[in-house]
Amino acid sequence: MDREEMKSVENTENSATTDVAYEVPSVALAMSILKLLSRYKTQSCTLTEISKRTHASKTTCLRVLRTLARGDFIRYDKVSRCYSLGAYLIPLGNRASQMVSGVSEVMLELPRLAEKVGETVMLLERLPEDAVIVLAKAAPSSEVARADVSIGQLFAGLGGAFGRCFLAYDAPSAWRKHWMKMTATGDRVAKMWSSQETFYEALETTRRVGAAVSHGEMAAGFSSVAVPLFASDGSVALVLAVLLLTSQYQEERGKAMIRILQQTAERWRGLF
Amino acid sequence: MDREEMKSVENTENSATTDVAYEVPSVALAMSILKLLSRYKTQSCTLTEISKRTHASKTTCLRVLRTLARGDFIRYDKVSRCYSLGAYLIPLGNRASQMVSGVSEVMLELPRLAEKVGETVMLLERLPEDAVIVLAKAAPSSEVARADVSIGQLFAGLGGAFGRCFLAYDAPSAWRKHWMKMTATGDRVAKMWSSQETFYEALETTRRVGAAVSHGEMAAGFSSVAVPLFASDGSVALVLAVLLLTSQYQEERGKAMIRILQQTAERWRGLF
Repeated sequence: MDREEMKSVENTENSATTDVAYEVPSVALAMSILKLLSRYKTQSCTLTEISKRTHASKTTCLRVLRTLARGDFIRYDKVSRCYSLGAYLIPLGNRASQMVSGVSEVMLELPRLAEKVGETVMLLERLPEDAVIVLAKAAPSSEVARADVSIGQLFAGLGGAFGRCFLAYDAPSAWRKHWMKMTATGDRVAKMWSSQETFYEALETTRRVGAAVSHGEMAAGFSSVAVPLFASDGSVALVLAVLLLTSQYQEERGKAMIRILQQTAERWRGLF
Repeated sequence: MDREEMKSVENTENSATTDVAYEVPSVALAMSILKLLSRYKTQSCTLTEISKRTHASKTTCLRVLRTLARGDFIRYDKVSRCYSLGAYLIPLGNRASQMVSGVSEVMLELPRLAEKVGETVMLLERLPEDAVIVLAKAAPSSEVARADVSIGQLFAGLGGAFGRCFLAYDAPSAWRKHWMKMTATGDRVAKMWSSQETFYEALETTRRVGAAVSHGEMAAGFSSVAVPLFASDGSVALVLAVLLLTSQYQEERGKAMIRILQQTAERWRGLF
């Protein structure tokens, strides 16, 4: 690599990392396949299914699948002719949870927080394309039936109290874009809000109060109380939320939960 | 895709999945980068370091890194200009541990097994190129200092009691190849065996007894007791092992451990 080329690499490294033009299609396909196989409904797929769902040719899929299988990122079962996640992802995920700044500290404290709140608590991350994923969760040790969620659960859109905690800190232009997208797709969340104004007000309140509460927004019967976790640069790194049954939500209890979550978030500020 | 092409895809799908000719170089590079960033020593690397260690050009690395960053498989820190593992791997690894056949059941039982044995127990997987990786581990709840290992720890070669539990069930041609490789590289394990014959005898014993014991083979001062976990087709799927200090190993205790491990392995037979 000569000096000119070198300089160009350095320049592009500094520009936005979200530029699709710099994507390697086969690596993007590999990630799509892993995401597909990480959903319960599609945890075991044939080559044909993978090709259909990823909109890539069978030949291309097969080559990517083989490469992933060699590294044990996925497995191929000769009898069922199905692909599924591979065991190498287990230690890789474990290492990530130790190495991603702040996450391991927070994960260690989640069980204690769940005991304190008396409900399931979750640590959520925002993914590209307006999705939210459960990074970690903890449930209190009581024997009562309660709301639960699994690690890796994806929530499409930025709905619910936790989605709002991410969206509220975006620029208002992102709010507008999000509202238009929701109404265009007839999204469940859009139907929960009588108008664009009430939706904006909810986002403004979330931003002012630094917390959000939602009832039945992501799924009927479930409520959520959420607070943002700030990075040292002031951006929202993750969201900390409580998941509970709407029938067990009372306003006083909700306020107490927000207080606990916010105290915790304050202690964790800048960890990420 | 026409019928001919289809047929060719199906045929190649059935042939060995280890054929390098079918690899997609950028996907292989993506996996190498993730593996590199999952080691403690190289958990945070600049583009230059990644390019050097993966033997790929900066331009190629940058494009792969960008693609991985978009999916949150890795993260880029603008201040340090370093790449590290991304948070999306956490839920992905979690899903894999639930979905990889048998692993979640086994992981749930490991803590109880550790209590029973009184030492750290590990679940190990064989990776391509003769390495063994710790998929899961559990330590007993006593407060005594003990041997420990971290999840994701890689052991090169197929040494130690656990490596021998994998190698013993390979064809003798693989034994010979392994012995030649070890002696050629002046491997620690080769030095532990006075001759090729004693090494073969140890493998034959492992195969006959269905268990292995090693002292100081992977690291001085550490002993290991291991048994193979068989898949329903009779192949060795994983290895279950106890890690302890050689100074705390006594033959009677070792025999008791083998008994416990073998009873557990028998219960788990065919789970994988």
